[in-house]
Amino acid sequence: MHDSPSPRIASLLRSRQPNHTLPAELYTDANVFDADMEVIFHRHWIYVGPICDVPEPGDVSVVDIGRSSIIILRDDADVVRAFFNVCRHRGARLLPAGISTIGRLVCPYHQWTYELSGELAHAMHMGKDFDASCHSLVPVHLRSIGGLLYACLADRPPADLDDLAEVMEARLAPYGLRDAKVAHQVDLIERGNWKLTIENNRECYHCSATHPELCVAFVDLDFGFDPASLSAEDRALAEAHEMRYAGKAREWEALGFETKAVEHLAGHPTNFRTQRLVMGGAGESQTADALAACGRLLGSMTRKDLGDLHLWGHNAWHHFMGDHAVTTMVMPLSASETLIRTKWLVHKEAVEGADYDVDRLTHVWKATNEQDAHLVAIAHAGIGSRGYRPGTYSRFTEGQLDNFLTWYIQRMQAHGF
Amino acid sequence: MHDSPSPRIASLLRSRQPNHTLPAELYTDANVFDADMEVIFHRHWIYVGPICDVPEPGDVSVVDIGRSSIIILRDDADVVRAFFNVCRHRGARLLPAGISTIGRLVCPYHQWTYELSGELAHAMHMGKDFDASCHSLVPVHLRSIGGLLYACLADRPPADLDDLAEVMEARLAPYGLRDAKVAHQVDLIERGNWKLTIENNRECYHCSATHPELCVAFVDLDFGFDPASLSAEDRALAEAHEMRYAGKAREWEALGFETKAVEHLAGHPTNFRTQRLVMGGAGESQTADALAACGRLLGSMTRKDLGDLHLWGHNAWHHFMGDHAVTTMVMPLSASETLIRTKWLVHKEAVEGADYDVDRLTHVWKATNEQDAHLVAIAHAGIGSRGYRPGTYSRFTEGQLDNFLTWYIQRMQAHGF
Amino acid sequence: MHDSPSPRIASLLRSRQPNHTLPAELYTDANVFDADMEVIFHRHWIYVGPICDVPEPGDVSVVDIGRSSIIILRDDADVVRAFFNVCRHRGARLLPAGISTIGRLVCPYHQWTYELSGELAHAMHMGKDFDASCHSLVPVHLRSIGGLLYACLADRPPADLDDLAEVMEARLAPYGLRDAKVAHQVDLIERGNWKLTIENNRECYHCSATHPELCVAFVDLDFGFDPASLSAEDRALAEAHEMRYAGKAREWEALGFETKAVEHLAGHPTNFRTQRLVMGGAGESQTADALAACGRLLGSMTRKDLGDLHLWGHNAWHHFMGDHAVTTMVMPLSASETLIRTKWLVHKEAVEGADYDVDRLTHVWKATNEQDAHLVAIAHAGIGSRGYRPGTYSRFTEGQLDNFLTWYIQRMQAHGF
Repeated sequence: MHDSPSPRIASLLRSRQPNHTLPAELYTDANVFDADMEVIFHRHWIYVGPICDVPEPGDVSVVDIGRSSIIILRDDADVVRAFFNVCRHRGARLLPAGISTIGRLVCPYHQWTYELSGELAHAMHMGKDFDASCHSLVPVHLRSIGGLLYACLADRPPADLDDLAEVMEARLAPYGLRDAKVAHQVDLIERGNWKLTIENNRECYHCSATHPELCVAFVDLDFGFDPASLSAEDRALAEAHEMRYAGKAREWEALGFETKAVEHLAGHPTNFRTQRLVMGGAGESQTADALAACGRLLGSMTRKDLGDLHLWGHNAWHHFMGDHAVTTMVMPLSASETLIRTKWLVHKEAVEGADYDVDRLTHVWKATNEQDAHLVAIAHAGIGSRGYRPGTYSRFTEGQLDNFLTWYIQRMQAHGF
Repeated sequence: MHDSPSPRIASLLRSRQPNHTLPAELYTDANVFDADMEVIFHRHWIYVGPICDVPEPGDVSVVDIGRSSIIILRDDADVVRAFFNVCRHRGARLLPAGISTIGRLVCPYHQWTYELSGELAHAMHMGKDFDASCHSLVPVHLRSIGGLLYACLADRPPADLDDLAEVMEARLAPYGLRDAKVAHQVDLIERGNWKLTIENNRECYHCSATHPELCVAFVDLDFGFDPASLSAEDRALAEAHEMRYAGKAREWEALGFETKAVEHLAGHPTNFRTQRLVMGGAGESQTADALAACGRLLGSMTRKDLGDLHLWGHNAWHHFMGDHAVTTMVMPLSASETLIRTKWLVHKEAVEGADYDVDRLTHVWKATNEQDAHLVAIAHAGIGSRGYRPGTYSRFTEGQLDNFLTWYIQRMQAHGF
Repeated sequence: MHDSPSPRIASLLRSRQPNHTLPAELYTDANVFDADMEVIFHRHWIYVGPICDVPEPGDVSVVDIGRSSIIILRDDADVVRAFFNVCRHRGARLLPAGISTIGRLVCPYHQWTYELSGELAHAMHMGKDFDASCHSLVPVHLRSIGGLLYACLADRPPADLDDLAEVMEARLAPYGLRDAKVAHQVDLIERGNWKLTIENNRECYHCSATHPELCVAFVDLDFGFDPASLSAEDRALAEAHEMRYAGKAREWEALGFETKAVEHLAGHPTNFRTQRLVMGGAGESQTADALAACGRLLGSMTRKDLGDLHLWGHNAWHHFMGDHAVTTMVMPLSASETLIRTKWLVHKEAVEGADYDVDRLTHVWKATNEQDAHLVAIAHAGIGSRGYRPGTYSRFTEGQLDNFLTWYIQRMQAHGF
């Protein structure tokens, strides 16, 4: 029941020191959580899943954004649309969360029946003066960019999703996400604030000690280091990696695969970063041995050695490799609970047991997400203490965190805080 | 810690459009829940159970109304009384929830001992200057109307419970509730606001698609329909039902059984509606085959074909049939959780296994309440969404909902909101 | 997000009548709980465990005070220290709750490494301009009084802990708590406000009817009675007990064991009371038969018949006997939940199975705490009712409760309420 932005939250946002973690309440307070949902999750583009969740007309994916459930469906004209999952009669949820296939949308309460276009087709007992055309489902803005679906609950979504499209449509095209399928999905609830989940994802300072599985194929050096912290041996490895990266980048660019980093972060409503990364070891895929997990490659990919195309957003991270992709959606549940939904995608014609094995496919990120969930939980717990003082980020390894929080504060302030 | 009615709630109440569902926060907000408890459940007459819960002196029924537990007991002078379930010494609950039999009320903490009249009989260590007569249990207004018990926690209860008595005493007398017993009780917690529970109960628009068990004996046509929505065949059925009802009404009235509807709804503090309804099929009882479930009839009833005497209140619904009665108490637990306590009553001399079978007796309303719990839950979930817009009621089938919300808003406004 | 003391709470504190229980909201309201944590648990000395939790350098005990977890450790110079359990980098909890042994403190997130002195020894990737000396762990005031550890989270703790030291150092010395060990620990969560837990502990009016196990060795007469309430027989027993107490007191004082009561209650920031009590029956220990439970005596004790040295604090109660000690820490979890952590101490060289049996050692207080948990729960439940009225304390048996609430209100008012 809060109508106007809280001056207390505005003051907390202003009080944050550059290059430091946030004041505690911005992570832990329930009113700040409500404000985050209102501003970030209701007025910005939110990643809600891959397009292969709804490959055919009548396919539906129901996703909850806070207390608002949305229906994402492919209509009979092959258009992917989204609606609020709310009957216009008495407000009932039309469909439960998850994936299903339907002909029309029939409310379980009084059988009001909607076309896949959202139009009300049928409602009994409403009399002759009832105007069905005023009772269509309330639409939600939805856009597919290279097969990644973004929704925005606000009437006027940020226009700069076009920038994401311009950068990513071409990069994602070879991975053919519409022709992919979800080989596996895991929902994990982290016991921490969503901003801590994102901060955790924006650095690899913690990787070497925490993520043995991930570090087979993932090179933490790409995310910064203090040369003075490295042994002579590690410095030599770092230099070798830089040279290897430069060589790969030239090779991939020559093949037409964009490699260089694009950053669209603080200063923009829509937050994203992409880069094609060199993988370690066998260099094919984020698996236990860095070899591909799926024999059938994605989309029009013909090679396994084109690196890891990564993409970050303000509620997501993704890795696209030759054989499979991993997409992760971040959805806050409360100030101290965050849903992490991970989907592993392979070509829709890949056959489980023949082309891929689910355990092998999911091994690295299942382990990595569980490890990160623990780190996020201990960070959240510590930040709630009277002994917490905002801490300094490493300018070598945590610059992206400072950038993310700068973005966060800008976005909150742009909406009245 | 709120002392005065919130202007925010008052503004929400004023903003409701006639013939529409409420603004979302009136269903979902925790402060509105507190206000509902304060106004509706603490200052109005609340149905708390049938008199056969306390048939003999010393019998006790403990019922929670929000955070206030009350003791309903029959004292040694055969008077049914109610007290707050709170020791006058250190505030301990004297008795746990549920049914029991006692001699005196002894506090488990320091053995302060009260008579069934509420007087403090004994308290150790309090010294000579301690005045026991100032430490009686705090009484709660309680009244039996035809064997239905109503409590009011306020000092000055609404006077118009007399209207309920005037209408219902005579109608309920033949059902002999004091000589009944509770054959079975089910507590069900619905995941929705209590007003959605009541709205659900006030229409049968949802019955045909949801309640196959109930619809054997319950005729949804009685609760309104749009003739234009019916097929020629269904319209013929409706006309036949109307004629059948008119015939039965004449027959029953001639026998001295009042049949016509009485409505005491918006405009009155105490909300109720009663009518004797014709049942479908075999027409005897709300069972799987519409035949009586109990061989021994209630009270002084001699016939099974006197229809279904229904009674609605603002926190209850009941059905009285020749062989048994079903009484339901609605008690809010939080903005999003509501207890539904259903008791099936038969004559106290009816013998389980011989005269009735519990599964057969309870089949219809156990199924119906579970089905309704799902509908209430999806309505509550949808109303919490940003996509919810208050919806229009059918003037044919949902007029009683509009009336109930009009009553609700009037009652809140009458108490300062 | 509350910055200044609430006038509503101040008004409730002022409204309390002397010698009566508190207005309900001071027990049940979430904002009052926050204020209690802020004033009582963050700005006063809080009992956090016995020194034998950390007997050797590197031993650690992690205890949560509200949302603030603290690390209590013995450093390499044999000094017992405490720090907030919060890394100075990103705020992560360094250690989980409970007992462990460590070399240095290494943060699980990015391996920032602290000496047992709290100094930051090592942090990678922070660059040359990073000043480690500004990033020591934040210290928490900690003091051992006769082997009982007290922590204070505020910058300036109350000075009068010296009074506790002056009284208790000598009394506790013979019990040798540093040379004790924790034979058993039980955590119990009571469903009631922490002040009800303390009130329950400050009277024995409820003992005879509730605690058959405790009453073997514990003499409730010591905590007051109304002579008029006693039978002639019980009055004779009371007089006999008084004479026995006077005799024992002379005997013990002559042996150098201080016996008389010291009360440091309302009027002081640090609340405590101590007295050496005569035990009932065999008179040795709080066991099922009042005989010692451990063959090896504590510290330098040579006799089992020196009574029960009890000590109360605002979040603790303790009993020191010849053979063992029972220490109890009270820690609020919410307005309606309170952790009771009980530790049974024996000499560190006592051997389980030979010198003592855990079931026998813990029998009385395990039963007693569970019985009290039920009483606290029914008191809390009743106080939440509309029917609750603050009740009068017995001036014979409940004077300590009035004193405790007087202390509580003074402390809240001293901190701005």
